[in-house]
Amino acid sequence: MRRAERLIRVTQRLLDHPNDAVSLSDLADETGSAKSSLSEDVAIIRRVLTAHGSGVIDTLAGASGGVRFRPRVPEPVRMAFAKRMAERLADPSRLLPGGFLYMSDVLGDPDVLEITGRLFAEPFYDSGVNVVVTMETKGIPLAVAAARCLHVPVVIVRREHRVTDGAALSVHYVSGSERRIQTMSISTRAMPSDARALIVDDFMRAGATVKAVRGLLAEFHAQVVGTAVFVATDQPREKLVDRYLALFRLGTLEEGKRIEVRPAEFLWREGGTPSTAHANEEVIAHE
Amino acid sequence: MRRAERLIRVTQRLLDHPNDAVSLSDLADETGSAKSSLSEDVAIIRRVLTAHGSGVIDTLAGASGGVRFRPRVPEPVRMAFAKRMAERLADPSRLLPGGFLYMSDVLGDPDVLEITGRLFAEPFYDSGVNVVVTMETKGIPLAVAAARCLHVPVVIVRREHRVTDGAALSVHYVSGSERRIQTMSISTRAMPSDARALIVDDFMRAGATVKAVRGLLAEFHAQVVGTAVFVATDQPREKLVDRYLALFRLGTLEEGKRIEVRPAEFLWREGGTPSTAHANEEVIAHE
Repeated sequence: MRRAERLIRVTQRLLDHPNDAVSLSDLADETGSAKSSLSEDVAIIRRVLTAHGSGVIDTLAGASGGVRFRPRVPEPVRMAFAKRMAERLADPSRLLPGGFLYMSDVLGDPDVLEITGRLFAEPFYDSGVNVVVTMETKGIPLAVAAARCLHVPVVIVRREHRVTDGAALSVHYVSGSERRIQTMSISTRAMPSDARALIVDDFMRAGATVKAVRGLLAEFHAQVVGTAVFVATDQPREKLVDRYLALFRLGTLEEGKRIEVRPAEFLWREGGTPSTAHANEEVIAHE
Repeated sequence: MRRAERLIRVTQRLLDHPNDAVSLSDLADETGSAKSSLSEDVAIIRRVLTAHGSGVIDTLAGASGGVRFRPRVPEPVRMAFAKRMAERLADPSRLLPGGFLYMSDVLGDPDVLEITGRLFAEPFYDSGVNVVVTMETKGIPLAVAAARCLHVPVVIVRREHRVTDGAALSVHYVSGSERRIQTMSISTRAMPSDARALIVDDFMRAGATVKAVRGLLAEFHAQVVGTAVFVATDQPREKLVDRYLALFRLGTLEEGKRIEVRPAEFLWREGGTPSTAHANEEVIAHE
């Protein structure tokens, strides 16, 4: 196979399997090329993708000599996304009775899912995460998008324990918005053993749901490596959970007043360059 | 930019945005290359991806001269997936009380989602589909995966109409497994106008849920371009809906008996070559 063709095949193989080790020996067999040529190809691909900011290629140690692609969001894309999304969410017609914000359209948008999945995954590539956990329903697409980048399964916390879930572990909790005792459960069989979980949700007010999910995960002896939410409210200031990644902050919603939506500093800063390092320090859970 | 680098950038741009038109003029600006050189690059990429079976690149007519990548599943991958998954689903420990099959682990598996998303999308690329619709909860990851390939939004049908959905359209239906009247609703704002919907679900027995979703979509004056389910049961033989794609067929579940799971013929055939054309004819809804 000629170099041009090989570069395309290797790029495709890496991009189609984010955060999954690709064996150079397998690629050598498949393309009928020497491993040394493939190593050169990978070096070129790494340089191009790094320069573009769309991801990082790591070379993995070990007998098989694999490589791995980890998707990221180029800075200009991140900034444009943050600005446009903040404007989109601040549309006054999104205000719902009871001080809620309509987001269902945004949470199903394929471009939003693609970028958010990468932004959620990015700080956690080195955390040893092996499962993304989300409470049904609206956050599931975000969780699936993040789990795709991390190449880990997604596990859905259910409000009701249904027959098709098989055996399940349940906890009770007091929901923040409805102020009543509710149940949540996870199918025992769906959880990996020695789970290291990233919790994903679309919206966080006080954090009661995330806190309850953490409690449920503790019953599985799972480690929580982090929590990522699409929107977190300014109020209450003190959340029930610490250390979480929120892409957008939402001011208090009041009829007739402007909806204030602010992107996280690592996404967009007035006149400054956002830094992802900033986000990483704050959101990785303590061991 | 040198050809090698350009090939990588263009491959990445296409693969990162499945079924989305990429403008050659934009790529020319971005890479500082002539459109004619990019056209040659695209021709090489097309040849490599087509030969590998991992997708098709179309050139779109019009002033902007765009190109578009549509992911597919290479035949060996499709066959290996079908065989392995049939075995995995036939594990006797999956049998649940009441004749249900445990699938939650499979439905959150990132490799299963990647392949299934492509298999679900493939017959519908030319259908004009502009939304993927799924009933909460377990089918949502499959729907997200298919919607990613098709580059369309995913809309979730809810069992309860919640405040965060805003205005919603609801219908009643009799659920197949629980034999009682239930409600399902869709947020009106989440549905595109002139919707052409692909319905996705994880499991179909009689088809009552899918039939109800079709009824609900009719209230939106939406066209249903097709229905794709992961597993459909053999019994009842006569479903409440016609023309649907099912990746796997499930025999009657009985305690102590072998679980029979058969891949669809277009995925895997004993001693024969599966044909996707076969699937397409059967599952595309009539106009």
